[in-house]
Amino acid sequence: MKKIINNPSDFVEESIQGLVISHPEIYSFANDNQRVIKRTSKAKNKVGIVSGGGSGHLPVFTGYVGKGLLDACAVGSVFASPSVDQIASAIRNGNNGSGVLCVLGNYGGDVMNFEMACEIVKSEGIETRMIIVSDDIASASNEEKLKRRGIAGLIFTFKIAGASSENGASLEEVYNLTLKANNNLRTIGVAVSSCILPEVGKPTFELENDEIEIGMGIHGEPGIKREKLRKADLLVDDLCKIIFEDFELSNSDKVSIMINSLGATPLEELYIVSKKVNEIFSKKNIEIVKSYVGRYATSLEMAGMSISVLKLDDDLKKALFDHSECPFWIN
Amino acid sequence: MKKIINNPSDFVEESIQGLVISHPEIYSFANDNQRVIKRTSKAKNKVGIVSGGGSGHLPVFTGYVGKGLLDACAVGSVFASPSVDQIASAIRNGNNGSGVLCVLGNYGGDVMNFEMACEIVKSEGIETRMIIVSDDIASASNEEKLKRRGIAGLIFTFKIAGASSENGASLEEVYNLTLKANNNLRTIGVAVSSCILPEVGKPTFELENDEIEIGMGIHGEPGIKREKLRKADLLVDDLCKIIFEDFELSNSDKVSIMINSLGATPLEELYIVSKKVNEIFSKKNIEIVKSYVGRYATSLEMAGMSISVLKLDDDLKKALFDHSECPFWIN
Repeated sequence: MKKIINNPSDFVEESIQGLVISHPEIYSFANDNQRVIKRTSKAKNKVGIVSGGGSGHLPVFTGYVGKGLLDACAVGSVFASPSVDQIASAIRNGNNGSGVLCVLGNYGGDVMNFEMACEIVKSEGIETRMIIVSDDIASASNEEKLKRRGIAGLIFTFKIAGASSENGASLEEVYNLTLKANNNLRTIGVAVSSCILPEVGKPTFELENDEIEIGMGIHGEPGIKREKLRKADLLVDDLCKIIFEDFELSNSDKVSIMINSLGATPLEELYIVSKKVNEIFSKKNIEIVKSYVGRYATSLEMAGMSISVLKLDDDLKKALFDHSECPFWIN
Repeated sequence: MKKIINNPSDFVEESIQGLVISHPEIYSFANDNQRVIKRTSKAKNKVGIVSGGGSGHLPVFTGYVGKGLLDACAVGSVFASPSVDQIASAIRNGNNGSGVLCVLGNYGGDVMNFEMACEIVKSEGIETRMIIVSDDIASASNEEKLKRRGIAGLIFTFKIAGASSENGASLEEVYNLTLKANNNLRTIGVAVSSCILPEVGKPTFELENDEIEIGMGIHGEPGIKREKLRKADLLVDDLCKIIFEDFELSNSDKVSIMINSLGATPLEELYIVSKKVNEIFSKKNIEIVKSYVGRYATSLEMAGMSISVLKLDDDLKKALFDHSECPFWIN
């Protein structure tokens, strides 16, 4: 395991301390909990947007705290849910007096702990709603879409919820727009090589030298199928087919796409993927109004990438383009 | 070699086509050369800022074309200089009628080809100056600073030159401010694992499982020494010592730092590094006014990172904070 770290047990604490010390104008620790990051300039009179989840996915989750995105975030250990206490603290710190929308990935521990935390803060008078993001096509069938995991599409929901709340929408309104974003979201990924968890010290999974796994989750959850590595254009063709089989898009639809590296896969490869995605969508007369290409939701140094599609209407498009302030989102 | 690519020989063309198609509001191909990227909205009446260099380092070089940064950029093959023709085209395309500042890394082929291209465009009436960036401490002694290679510090010089030119400075003034930036810049890096060039298919160099190389260049040029991998804090201590031995910084100095991943090294590790750098600088009463942490100058999927320090005065600080528009620079 070749990592530039200190004690593996200090990995999470030190990395979020580094995040806060590097960008003090954006991120601050909550006063009551060192596993909760909040906005340095707290918002007023708007719905709070709160997330949380395991570490090892930067910029997800904590990196998206900032104006126009998340108000606060609970930070779990590597690939593990934050605790109920941590989430309750994040909700309190993200609350600006107008209720809080929790936006989280669909993982058992996260969902359970968020539900319990929402119960706790309810008794303190904080109203909450919850959006459980489920964009990963590979993790359940279309009929069971609500069982799907949340992956790179999470960032789109953070952006939509954050923008809507900044514009003064009510908790119900922010909830409805973010729910529409989740309904309009699809992601499919491919793993090329494994990551190594600092406290484990060996690869999470093994892939042969010429093998990839379609649909593997960002924690190494089993995907749809293992296949031979093939040319990027053929791979992207197959991934887009999976998206189109799942998600009815017609010509004249407008979408935003995100080509996301799981970590090690470089920008050059992402742009080769993006080129092909653009060609495929163009042939179908589906307009890509904005492309995001980079590292958004990673798995440490895993190699691989995912393609996300968010179908837009006027409200979603406006929220997507609204101004935000965070080192990991370019307006 | 596990890469999401098509034919290795198409790697560069396809990745820059993807860049342009993904961000058409920022990047366009030059009409006369498919290896030259220019700003989509051409500037008027300002000094043009032009760069160029080998591929495989995204976002360097081409990614930094945009308002407040580069006006045009020539794109070489992987780790290879662009040709004289390509550079001459980039200068013509980056010219807005007020002269052109070429900002490039100190590599033999790049310098030679830029010099020849400047001769060619001179005969066409385009006045040029050249800044050869030399921030890599490991590549030559302090007495021979001009022989040093240019690495991640390049981005600071792009930003300073771009901002200065947008503010209406003359070619001489932009040159002087950018020269000051280069004089005030130091970078030291460490390689943890090799990258693989698409057309080569095997690692550029070999490192043992517990071995790192201090000061290795972004093309695998030999560094200062090979050592055992050790805890991040000890490594960062040593790297900062190398910086302070080379570069006189006194308390009350203000600096900006860049913690740059060479590719595979994840954000979490960069923030552990950034935390320690912040602590070391804080003990010396050197104020870090802005930290940049991420992938700025990469070597495909190489693992490792570099620490850059830019000493600021009021003019450099203003230029650093000025607005720019590019997917790889957060204002």
